[in-house]
Parts: sequence; C-alpha cells; structure tokens
Amino acid sequence: MVPLGGEKMFWLSVTKENDIPLIRQVYDQIKHRILNGQLKGGERIPSSRELAANLCISRNVVLEAYEQLIAEGFIETKQGSGTFVGQGAFLEQDISSNVKTKINLTTSNDDQEIINFRSGIPALNLFPKKVWAQIAKEVYQNMEPQEIGYGNPEGTTQLRKVLSNYLLKTRGVYCSPDQILITSGATQALSILAKLLLKQNDTVIIEDPVTYEIQNIFSNQGSTLYPIPVDEKGMRTDLIPSNLKPSFVFVTPSHQFPLGGILPIQRRIELIQFARQTGCYIVEDDYDSEFRYNGPPISSLQGLDPEFVIYIGTFSKILSPGLRIGYLVLPQTLIERCRDIKWYADLHTSSFEQITLAKFIEEGHLERHITKMRRVYEKRRKTLIQALVSNFSDTISIHGDSTGLHLIVEFKNIDFSEELLNKVLSNNVRIYSVDTHSYHKGKHLNKIILGYGNVTTEKIIEGITKLKETLSS
Amino acid sequence: MVPLGGEKMFWLSVTKENDIPLIRQVYDQIKHRILNGQLKGGERIPSSRELAANLCISRNVVLEAYEQLIAEGFIETKQGSGTFVGQGAFLEQDISSNVKTKINLTTSNDDQEIINFRSGIPALNLFPKKVWAQIAKEVYQNMEPQEIGYGNPEGTTQLRKVLSNYLLKTRGVYCSPDQILITSGATQALSILAKLLLKQNDTVIIEDPVTYEIQNIFSNQGSTLYPIPVDEKGMRTDLIPSNLKPSFVFVTPSHQFPLGGILPIQRRIELIQFARQTGCYIVEDDYDSEFRYNGPPISSLQGLDPEFVIYIGTFSKILSPGLRIGYLVLPQTLIERCRDIKWYADLHTSSFEQITLAKFIEEGHLERHITKMRRVYEKRRKTLIQALVSNFSDTISIHGDSTGLHLIVEFKNIDFSEELLNKVLSNNVRIYSVDTHSYHKGKHLNKIILGYGNVTTEKIIEGITKLKETLSS
Repeated sequence: MVPLGGEKMFWLSVTKENDIPLIRQVYDQIKHRILNGQLKGGERIPSSRELAANLCISRNVVLEAYEQLIAEGFIETKQGSGTFVGQGAFLEQDISSNVKTKINLTTSNDDQEIINFRSGIPALNLFPKKVWAQIAKEVYQNMEPQEIGYGNPEGTTQLRKVLSNYLLKTRGVYCSPDQILITSGATQALSILAKLLLKQNDTVIIEDPVTYEIQNIFSNQGSTLYPIPVDEKGMRTDLIPSNLKPSFVFVTPSHQFPLGGILPIQRRIELIQFARQTGCYIVEDDYDSEFRYNGPPISSLQGLDPEFVIYIGTFSKILSPGLRIGYLVLPQTLIERCRDIKWYADLHTSSFEQITLAKFIEEGHLERHITKMRRVYEKRRKTLIQALVSNFSDTISIHGDSTGLHLIVEFKNIDFSEELLNKVLSNNVRIYSVDTHSYHKGKHLNKIILGYGNVTTEKIIEGITKLKETLSS
Repeated sequence: MVPLGGEKMFWLSVTKENDIPLIRQVYDQIKHRILNGQLKGGERIPSSRELAANLCISRNVVLEAYEQLIAEGFIETKQGSGTFVGQGAFLEQDISSNVKTKINLTTSNDDQEIINFRSGIPALNLFPKKVWAQIAKEVYQNMEPQEIGYGNPEGTTQLRKVLSNYLLKTRGVYCSPDQILITSGATQALSILAKLLLKQNDTVIIEDPVTYEIQNIFSNQGSTLYPIPVDEKGMRTDLIPSNLKPSFVFVTPSHQFPLGGILPIQRRIELIQFARQTGCYIVEDDYDSEFRYNGPPISSLQGLDPEFVIYIGTFSKILSPGLRIGYLVLPQTLIERCRDIKWYADLHTSSFEQITLAKFIEEGHLERHITKMRRVYEKRRKTLIQALVSNFSDTISIHGDSTGLHLIVEFKNIDFSEELLNKVLSNNVRIYSVDTHSYHKGKHLNKIILGYGNVTTEKIIEGITKLKETLSS
C-alpha cells in the first residue's frame, strides 16, 4: 500500500491474487475515492511514473487507468504541472454499501406434487425436442447474414408463405402471405389489435365468459367492454343490440373459451352482417381448434369474409408456449398500420425461431406432431370423462365440443367458492372456476374448467378421485 | 357428377386425383352451395346412403362430411324425415372470387450492390453460427418440460443470474438478478418504459440529436419531449431548467447516439442530483459501449445510483439484431409494475432463446466473441478514418469517442440535403445525415453518421472513394 494524493494520506493497494486486472484495481480505487469525497476536486494526484514505482507495477498499467479516468472526467492533466482530481465529481452517499445483492428470484408456483388441471397447456414432455433441435442446428449453421440482421416487422417471408398454405389447408383461412403478421404469441397479437383499433371510450363486444386476461388487455386501452352471454353454441349473437357501434367484436367461434361451444353458421353470418352494417371488425381468436376429436377442425369465420375478420392464431397450444410465436391474419386495409405498431413494440419477432418454425412446418413435422398429439389428447379426454362419470355419475354434466385441451364440468349442487378451490388445492389438485372468467359474476359458480393437455391419464384418474374425496368430505 | 338436392339440379363431383381428402371435397362443395344460396334453407338434401351410392364412395365419407356440416350448423337432420339445409346460412357475395392471392411480400431494401454505412449493424457474417447452433441443439434436446411451458414475464432465472454477473464485471452495473427484466430487444424495453412512466402530457427530457425512433416511441405515449442540446461530451446538463419536473431523462452516456461523446462524471452527477431533487428517473440506454477501442468500456451511470437509474441493454449489437433480446435493469420499486406491463405485452420473451443465450454467456463464448469483434471493428474504424483523411484531408473533422459501430464526419462546406444523400445513393453508397435525428432541425446538416460494423475494409475504402467522387462531381 502506498500513500496517495496531496497533504492527506490515502492508501492504494493492488494484488495479483484475484482475477481483477491491475488496471481495473487502480481505476476503481481512485474513482471511488473521488466519488465519495476522499479525494477532492483540484487535489493533485501522483504522476503515473510515481504511482507505478510505488505500487511496483508497470507504468503502462497506471497510464491506462489514468486514461480511462480522464475519458470519464474524474481526473485531468495540466500540461507541465501534473494530474489533478476533476471538479464536481463528488456524489453524496457511498453506493457500494447501497447495493442490494439479495437474490430473490420468482420461481414457478407449480409444485411438482400438484395435479394441475390448468387449461391451455399442451403435453410439455411430448414437445418434439429431437426434431426441433436438429432443425434449429441446421438453420443456425446455415443462416444468411441478412437473416442475422434486423428483419421486417411482419415477420420472415418464408414463415408467412408456409403459414398461408397451412392455414388454407387446415383451417379454411383465406389469405396471401402479405396479410400475415408474425407476433410474439397471441397475447401480443391482442395487444397490437387493442392499439390498432381502440381509442378511449370505444366499445368492444366480448363473450361472457371470456378469458380474464383478454378483458384486461382491452380495458387497459381505455375501452368499454360490452359482454354478450354465451350459451352451449357460443356467443348469443341475437343479443347484440343493433344500434351498438363497437370498434370490434371479439369471438372464439371454433371453440368458445371457456365454455367450449362451436358457433353455428347462422350466428357467424349474423356477425358478418353486423360487421358489414356497422363497419366494425370481427376478431376471431382461434387458440386450439387444431385438436378436434370427432371430425376435422371447424372452418374459420375469417373464410366467410376476409375483409371484416381479423384472425388470431398461435403455436402455443400445438407446439410450445415457451416459443412465443403467434400471428395475425389481417384485411389488406389494416396491414400497414399494424406493421407500424409491431415495429414500435419490438421491431419484429426473433428471426431465428421464425426460420426454424418455417422449416419445421415445411418438412411436414407440424402436421405429424398434431396428428400424434390429437391421439394423445383424445385419450386423455376420454379418460377424464370416464373418471368424472364414474366418480360423480349424474350429479354433473359435461359441456363443450370435443375439441382442444379442456372441458367444462357443471355440478348440480356445488358452487366453487375461492375457499372450496383452496380446499381442493390442499389435497394437491388444482382446478379452475369458470366464474373467474365471467364478466357478470355469479352465473357460472357451479362450473369448473378442467384442462387435460398436460396431465397424464394416470394423474387424471388420481386427480379426479382426489377431487371426489375433497368434495365429499 | 351427380345431381343433388330437391327440385333444382346441382352437381357434386369428387376426384381421387388430387390430395384433398374425399370428406373435405364433399363438405366443401355442399358448404359453398349453401353459403352462396344455391342450396336454400329448408331444402332437403340426399341421405348419406343415397349420396354415397351416387358418388361411388364409402358411406362413412359422406357421414363424416355431414357430421361436420351438422356441427357447424349448415345442415340438420330431422328424425325420420331426412337431412335439410339449415336456415340462415346464406351469405351474400361469393368469397372465393374475393380472395386476393397476389403475393406481394415486402423484401429487404438493401440491394447487395450498395455499400451501406448504416449505424448499429454488427458484422453479420461473423455471427458465431457454429457455436450457437451447437449450444442451441444441446439446449433444445435437453429442455425440461417446465421450460417448454409458459414462463415468467421477467425472463428465465438462469439468464438473469448470468447477466447480473456479466453486467457487474463488464459494465459496472450493480444489480441482483431480480432487478432484471428480459425484453424482446431494446425497442421493447423503451416501449415498456414509456407505458410504465408516461402519462398524457408528461415531459421527457431527451438529448438533441437522439435516435429518431426514440422520439416517436415517447411521443406516441402522449408525452411532451424536452430536447437538451448535445455537445462533444454528450448532453449539456447545465441547460436542464431546474424547475422542470420531467417523468424521466433519457441519455446515452457511454456513447451518445449519434454524436459519440462520453458523458463526463460531472454531468453524470448533475443528472443524479437532478433526479434526486425532482424525483424523476434517469433512463440510461447503453447500446454499444462493449466495443471501446482505446480502453475498457465506460462505467455505467446506473452504478452511481441504482435507485434512480433505469439501465437498458441489448444483444443486438454484440450478437445479432435478429435474435431480439434486450433487458432492463430496474430500481426495486419499479419491478412489479414492469412485470405486469411485459405480461400484457407478450407474456414473456422466448424461453428457448433465453436458455441458449444464458449457456452461451456462461461458457464464456460471449466474452470471446466481443474480444474478437473488438479487433475487427477497430480495424474497420481505422480503415475508415484513413480513407476519410486521405480523400477529404482538412475539409472534414471526425467526431465521437472511439467506441461502438459508427463515427461522425463533419464537413466544412457541405450540407447533406435529401437530394445530395440520394445522389450519393445513386452511386451505390448509402450514408445517413445526423440531422435526421435532430429535434430542432438544421443544426447538424453538415454532419453524417458512418456505421462501419457491417462493412468490410475493402468496401469501406471503395465506399469512401465513391463518396468523394460524388461530392466532387
């Protein structure tokens, strides 16, 4: 240690016994002495030669540390007279003592022990890891420079081309690739639409019940929600007031969430006609209709009138929610503004994963995966229905088209309060109340949502048995 | 072809010579005849047995097509009397003629021929494709089910831990992993901050000049921009009116964009004191300071007072813009609300790529890549400076600390109008005017930004020679 500075004595020490470079050690100590006021503005500090000699280190080390301190304004050299502490480089309070280093990371709430009937979660352990890994490796090895650079907000050309074919073939969605905008999941698609279509005090027609989160995304934008009740066939379009002029109508026609109905053609046509008359849009959220167990997927509403329907799709249910890829199919008139909003939101979705996904679809893996998973989910669904019937027989009825990753159970004599849901949870089973998703609370208290996508048949049977135990106790 | 339906004659045909399944062919044709009104509500259609016989196909095919049509409401069966077209399933206008199938995809504007001095683009052909591909493959093959499911809005634990170490070591940023929020690039970080901190009519202090896009992101949120001029050392903090109460001050202290100055410690302290007095935040955008050629990177402003400074970082410049990963380092008080905003924006950034990136950093590849690229960019910078000096000698001066991926050239007698920039472009060189990024236009007309990150030394020499040609002609 050597004394440093003018009249007062300050001590500077360096060591070769840690992995902090000597330059950094010298720099750090002088900087902190200046910041905390130990070295004051205008004070002279030793020349680089002097300090290097005292510390027994190379003069270049001290020179480099001084250069850095000069670049940042901590010290300054005056030709011929030496090196001085800069003015105004003192900051009250020592920050080093102030730093919170506690590591308090949020961890997943899902205890492994709990049988979780959360809806919308695919079978996570059946994600095609091997094929995906192989394709990703090939894609990353062979990426072109322009694919590594900034992309376009609408997404990669290749993915949009592949997707437009896929959508026509499997979902009856009519669109050219330039009508597609790739988003970071369906949630971003919704949040972009809210920005695109909603001004303060605009009205949005929604289904009641509808995903809780969707209500929030739309009302966060300052709009008024106008809920229309849902029956076993989806939205009661006959209850839409003809004098209402909403910005858009939000529907889940292929598989209403949560109640599970398919919107019949008559109601679809009513919606299209309402849109044509009022000039509003229909936003069709198609979140899981690829998995239909008693026939092919229901055709999209978008196919009926691509000028008035905005279609939202996602790969979260058919592949992985962790991937965060979804998309919008837009009428021509909205494409330009939507690109702008996406641009200001995050420029574009990761090109790397878009290219991998395009290749995965192109090589037929997506369709094979869907076919495989449809069988898995169909079996889980059947097991769940059997378990429900054998445990609860005629005290329940089961609702929803046999589509997707969840079903609805209506109990004749039970209302699912927060307390009851917690009692079930204390027996290590997590179920979800339909009423959480209700706009007008209290109408669906006796209905629960059971998601079976990520629960094995063994766990389904165990879970329903435990549910029975709790409800009987 | 067989006649179908009641009194009128309609024709239905199926073929085994294309790859559309027979069920789909039957379904599609009946559906379209109903939608376009050729088959009217209430009309009887042939029984499944009858139609199957006429078409010489299996009855099961027809039954499945009918089931689908029944599920969607197009037809209905009446016990004992047959199958009928549903009411209200007619929609005016045939959509199939309406579908625009023109493929009009946006393609990149960057012609290969053009030497593009765009700033902020790293050397795209030097992205570590092989290592990245290998790590990605291993990561994807070994992903745990919970990593494939929905993640947390703040990002994966592993990446935030690795990043907090990296930031302390390389950037002097003091934070615990729970202060980090992973975003889809720095643009999303800015857009989240705008939502977090700005209400209608709030004031934001910005540098002038500052990236054009940043001005838009903040003013889109309804805020008023208050520009403070920048000199060769960055923001003129002495010009901030002490009675101003902004929501935050936006600065690029390590390397002002575009002018390239390093904000000296005295001005940094003025900013911190201003923040403490007015209760506003400082938003520190650190977009490219990892590449400094005459010393280590400048320490962050955040390190001076982590309670008042929000730090934004990105992997776009040090790895790839196509990856779309950036991050926010937040004061403890803002973490919760920031997570919510991220959640409503897109739930979270892709877990797959976060895990890959964490491993890439952990294994030391990032630091090795930065070291390698620093040498590449230093050489490009030197080549550019030499080319400028030998072509323009004392008619120009060069500005900006030797950091990052761009420098500024000030011409003594030339103003760069739109017309002149286009003239340069017609000679296959693209340069950018500083004035584009000015809030108060007209002060920086004689300065251009030359980005050299993605231009090889050969192209740099060629480009500057061509620039000289154009400017002399």
